[in-house]
Amino acid sequence: MFDGVLARGRVPEAVSDAAWLRAMLAAEAALARARGLDAKVADAIAAAASDPRLDPRTLGARAAESGNPVVPLVAALREIAGPEVHRGATSQDILDTAAMLVAADALVILREDLGAAAGAAARLAAQHRATPMIGRTLLQQAMPTTFGLKAAGWMRGLDAGLERLAGFRPVAQLAGPAGTLDAIGPDVLRRYCELLGLDEPVLPWHTERSRIGELASALGIACGAIAKVAGDVVLLAQTEVGEVTEAAPGGSSSMPHKRNPVAAVSARACARQAPGLVATLLASMEQEHERAAGAWHAEWAPLRALLVASGSAAVWLRACLEGLEVDVARMRANLPAEAELGGAVASAGALVDRALSRRPGA
Amino acid sequence: MFDGVLARGRVPEAVSDAAWLRAMLAAEAALARARGLDAKVADAIAAAASDPRLDPRTLGARAAESGNPVVPLVAALREIAGPEVHRGATSQDILDTAAMLVAADALVILREDLGAAAGAAARLAAQHRATPMIGRTLLQQAMPTTFGLKAAGWMRGLDAGLERLAGFRPVAQLAGPAGTLDAIGPDVLRRYCELLGLDEPVLPWHTERSRIGELASALGIACGAIAKVAGDVVLLAQTEVGEVTEAAPGGSSSMPHKRNPVAAVSARACARQAPGLVATLLASMEQEHERAAGAWHAEWAPLRALLVASGSAAVWLRACLEGLEVDVARMRANLPAEAELGGAVASAGALVDRALSRRPGA
Amino acid sequence: MFDGVLARGRVPEAVSDAAWLRAMLAAEAALARARGLDAKVADAIAAAASDPRLDPRTLGARAAESGNPVVPLVAALREIAGPEVHRGATSQDILDTAAMLVAADALVILREDLGAAAGAAARLAAQHRATPMIGRTLLQQAMPTTFGLKAAGWMRGLDAGLERLAGFRPVAQLAGPAGTLDAIGPDVLRRYCELLGLDEPVLPWHTERSRIGELASALGIACGAIAKVAGDVVLLAQTEVGEVTEAAPGGSSSMPHKRNPVAAVSARACARQAPGLVATLLASMEQEHERAAGAWHAEWAPLRALLVASGSAAVWLRACLEGLEVDVARMRANLPAEAELGGAVASAGALVDRALSRRPGA
Amino acid sequence: MFDGVLARGRVPEAVSDAAWLRAMLAAEAALARARGLDAKVADAIAAAASDPRLDPRTLGARAAESGNPVVPLVAALREIAGPEVHRGATSQDILDTAAMLVAADALVILREDLGAAAGAAARLAAQHRATPMIGRTLLQQAMPTTFGLKAAGWMRGLDAGLERLAGFRPVAQLAGPAGTLDAIGPDVLRRYCELLGLDEPVLPWHTERSRIGELASALGIACGAIAKVAGDVVLLAQTEVGEVTEAAPGGSSSMPHKRNPVAAVSARACARQAPGLVATLLASMEQEHERAAGAWHAEWAPLRALLVASGSAAVWLRACLEGLEVDVARMRANLPAEAELGGAVASAGALVDRALSRRPGA
Repeated sequence: MFDGVLARGRVPEAVSDAAWLRAMLAAEAALARARGLDAKVADAIAAAASDPRLDPRTLGARAAESGNPVVPLVAALREIAGPEVHRGATSQDILDTAAMLVAADALVILREDLGAAAGAAARLAAQHRATPMIGRTLLQQAMPTTFGLKAAGWMRGLDAGLERLAGFRPVAQLAGPAGTLDAIGPDVLRRYCELLGLDEPVLPWHTERSRIGELASALGIACGAIAKVAGDVVLLAQTEVGEVTEAAPGGSSSMPHKRNPVAAVSARACARQAPGLVATLLASMEQEHERAAGAWHAEWAPLRALLVASGSAAVWLRACLEGLEVDVARMRANLPAEAELGGAVASAGALVDRALSRRPGA
Repeated sequence: MFDGVLARGRVPEAVSDAAWLRAMLAAEAALARARGLDAKVADAIAAAASDPRLDPRTLGARAAESGNPVVPLVAALREIAGPEVHRGATSQDILDTAAMLVAADALVILREDLGAAAGAAARLAAQHRATPMIGRTLLQQAMPTTFGLKAAGWMRGLDAGLERLAGFRPVAQLAGPAGTLDAIGPDVLRRYCELLGLDEPVLPWHTERSRIGELASALGIACGAIAKVAGDVVLLAQTEVGEVTEAAPGGSSSMPHKRNPVAAVSARACARQAPGLVATLLASMEQEHERAAGAWHAEWAPLRALLVASGSAAVWLRACLEGLEVDVARMRANLPAEAELGGAVASAGALVDRALSRRPGA
Repeated sequence: MFDGVLARGRVPEAVSDAAWLRAMLAAEAALARARGLDAKVADAIAAAASDPRLDPRTLGARAAESGNPVVPLVAALREIAGPEVHRGATSQDILDTAAMLVAADALVILREDLGAAAGAAARLAAQHRATPMIGRTLLQQAMPTTFGLKAAGWMRGLDAGLERLAGFRPVAQLAGPAGTLDAIGPDVLRRYCELLGLDEPVLPWHTERSRIGELASALGIACGAIAKVAGDVVLLAQTEVGEVTEAAPGGSSSMPHKRNPVAAVSARACARQAPGLVATLLASMEQEHERAAGAWHAEWAPLRALLVASGSAAVWLRACLEGLEVDVARMRANLPAEAELGGAVASAGALVDRALSRRPGA
Repeated sequence: MFDGVLARGRVPEAVSDAAWLRAMLAAEAALARARGLDAKVADAIAAAASDPRLDPRTLGARAAESGNPVVPLVAALREIAGPEVHRGATSQDILDTAAMLVAADALVILREDLGAAAGAAARLAAQHRATPMIGRTLLQQAMPTTFGLKAAGWMRGLDAGLERLAGFRPVAQLAGPAGTLDAIGPDVLRRYCELLGLDEPVLPWHTERSRIGELASALGIACGAIAKVAGDVVLLAQTEVGEVTEAAPGGSSSMPHKRNPVAAVSARACARQAPGLVATLLASMEQEHERAAGAWHAEWAPLRALLVASGSAAVWLRACLEGLEVDVARMRANLPAEAELGGAVASAGALVDRALSRRPGA
């Protein structure tokens, strides 16, 4: 019902139950291959995604017995592919590895949309490097600036979010129940990581969750940058300000003529989910001994929700910025008559040039 | 995939897309009736839940155009039941009313499960009012107490959560786009509320969100009480302590013999979602003018997630406590040999009696 | 350095170290009296606030040895008033009781300021019940309303916050180390509560923290209501909107002529501290066994910070609203020329009358 | 009163009002020098820290007039050092620069303590690489591991936190009221940064707050790592487990004989402040236009509180780990009699060696 607004773009599918199942199967298949089992075992695992015994709803329901979906998954896979499946591993090895695969896929999509939004901001910056507008502090008109400088600030924030996301390195998990690796061995671990295209962990990280905190933070920072831009668009689009309009504004159920900045509003709505979810994930870093009694399980929902919220926010902001209509005349009209523009416009333009020349890839 | 653990019991269905659709239709039908339209209009609205044009996925997708699902819902309903549908109302009237109907239904379920958990705690308190065990402070053995007093403390926390939830009064929303009620009138509002069984608002609360904050807080406090109990069970069930066991402990994918306190672990995992979600909802109380540009939309996902997490936590805790096996001998064995029990046990028992006698309904 | 903005009014003093010390001494003195010790003991305790051995900095430093300031406090008090001091009690009895005394004092102040802000909103509502202005949804001009209706909405939110705060009942804590009351007895507990003017707890609540959750939530909801009003003022005060001005707007370091809505901005800054602090306090409800190993200690700073933030936000909002200048002509000028006002103004005015007549105490 | 527990070590002094004043004066002095003013001006500014007109309490009180302490600071400095002080800058230039200077100083201290804690964990890992103990999953005994592997996991988490903190680059702020730099110029900016030893910003970041989000996240992740270790110590120190003891355990006000793990408990109490504060700072990234109307001011308190909490948590954990007494015999006694240790111990030891060899600087 709310997915059109709050679960937009392709990230929701990338973090769906089906995607998690695929990722868990990829992990189990990689383990079978890494252990040198008969190729039929891994093939059977890899082919099992559509087996009715692996219906996510069934697995989800049976997950309640043990507290995680890997236990019923392994039971089903052993029926399908034999008793060697999963040997040496623990549930969390598979789920954490799957989480990394799922997150990595989601991040590819998210970075594409966020990158497009940053690109749109960069184009606005270049195009309006010398378009004068009033700068506003505490929502009061203050001194002149240019719209290009404002857009360049947006770009910088989005680029910072992108850089942080790009720095996230997904890493595999495989070490067995107490994390000692002794039923697995370092060679199997290495092959498992290679097969999955994930970094090899120096140690098991079953209860060392800094990478979850890092992923969460990177998403939270990206959402903060998105919210800033969307908030500015909402303010600039106010009827009394009127300096920008979205390309496809929305009407309302009672006032179809309205030109609501739906994309910016929705981007904000999505992005504002982030801080609370990040807090939950940071608080969940306190995990007991070799496997947490709740804090690990407490990660699953907020991590998924955070990826969906971030991905949706990025899609909305991209749509907002790629089609943003800038009313240069209104910007000028809103400037105080007595404002002296010369120095500010030149200086702002030079800042824009510098920011554009320093863009990654510029 | 995670629903067996994190979306347990009947609350998830009560806050599903289908439930939201039913609630929105109930609101539109009540509006038609309250306005005195031909009964066929309201009947057609009420019967439309299974109409393919109202498929939640379709509505959700089209919600993206305007930023909320009521706009496409009304368009479809006007095709079905005529152009009078929704007249005078605004999207938020329907969605906020639906939110209250959905929350009220979810709370009935949640209170039943939480009440059962509190009842189980009360029974444990009565049964073990004089069962000696060591009291533990900062996780160090301190002075003797009784298991009944510990369970009575659990009961008090759960009862406090229940009382707060029982105090929540769902209230309707109906006032039109700017909240002036002028296209609706007080009589229609009164009938609308009566038909829906919701309190009548003194003023529209489109951007006065104290009741959302109140609902969120009540759920957050209930989750805090649940987490406390579940945490104690996890600690008492430690191998080295061994004072309680769950009736249906779970195994693991690699160690089927283990007796994991799955219900307590899962209750904790669910309950720990709450603080971050409450924070999002409290932060969302800052809503602009007559309709918020994002903060309203930002409520939908965390409110649903919070209801699901709370409902699931309550179901898990109920299962945990209703089947909790108490090892009285182990409790005694864990007491320091030199501990004098007499005074503490008698005094603790008297406290338990007092707490039981003061229970609501006792 | 930031206290002028973020620690305004009289709440900061009411939650200061000196206030905590007085409250802890009140608890110890009440315990001595309730136990029927020689009156000199209680008198010596009560008179000890200015004893150099009880300097908060000294106690605070020595608190590090045991993890709380009651241990060194009791050591010092025994030097001053004899070895019977504190007998039967545990540190948390004294600190929790002190927390309630401190919170109760802070709430009296907070409610006075918040009540004054609500009163100012009520006066604005009455005065401008029929002052037409444009209603704004998603920050777009929508349909006419009146400024009185907007102010009545502010009043309702603030009154809801007040009602919740008024419902908070501070309760004493006294039960000894394992919470069994056996070294104290119910009669001493009753007298202790009477002497302190606090409710008597049915059970010790050392690790049953629903009342901390309740206090935190009530403050969080009040802050949400404040942030909504302050946000509206900031938006209405925008240069391009210009419908309200604060009585004492502030300049800036570089633009002394600016008329920044400092009170609204500061109220927002204070109020926005709340959601994160509430989350910390809700998460801290999960307290182990008979005394938490960290979660109790984790309450002290956020509870104080939340009281300060709420109290400051209320003071700022009171100043903002009590002196708010409303530009009726600008409101009219901002209305679309073609807007029909009659029905909306009449209907909005009637809503205002209803809301004012339903005020508590109206 | 609580500072001994919650504001430990040297970070509190590094983020005190006095430290902020010094940092603001450093910024103003650097600006004067960068602008090529008479050296007397900068000298007078730099010498003004002890001038009574710059008493933080006075500045703080007067900050209320304009919403920030730079306005009264500049007024006082102009009396002291002439009218050229601050010319071209805006309040936020000075405060943001000061925030970076203060944070940088605090981070040096924090990293020293956190590094020492990580070093202590590394030593425990090396010393106990082959000390067998039972691994615990969901707080149930599972399979053998070694204490060295557990300690190596602690080390990895702390090192990850350190790495993230080391990656934070403080950057200056200087661009004038609308952020255009036109009254300042790029050369002055460059010299200002050089004089202060801060990175030069590509663009002003008055409302592009990714670095605040980054700093907050890094602190939140460090606190998560600390909380994990402290939580494990608390659990291992349980009377019934007894595998570790702190060197300086604390007594209680009623049970002086107790051996409470005060350092671990306090580290946890401090670290658990973080997630809520991080959420506030992430939510505050949404800042309007060229200067936020509240969200900027909302950063000051949580940023300071977060630095204090992190710094204190690090000091406590350092004390906890540097003096941790490991009871090897008890670890062995807690192992199930039938446990086969050989493979697990060897494999765990090899993992420890790998982790130690990969330490930064190893």
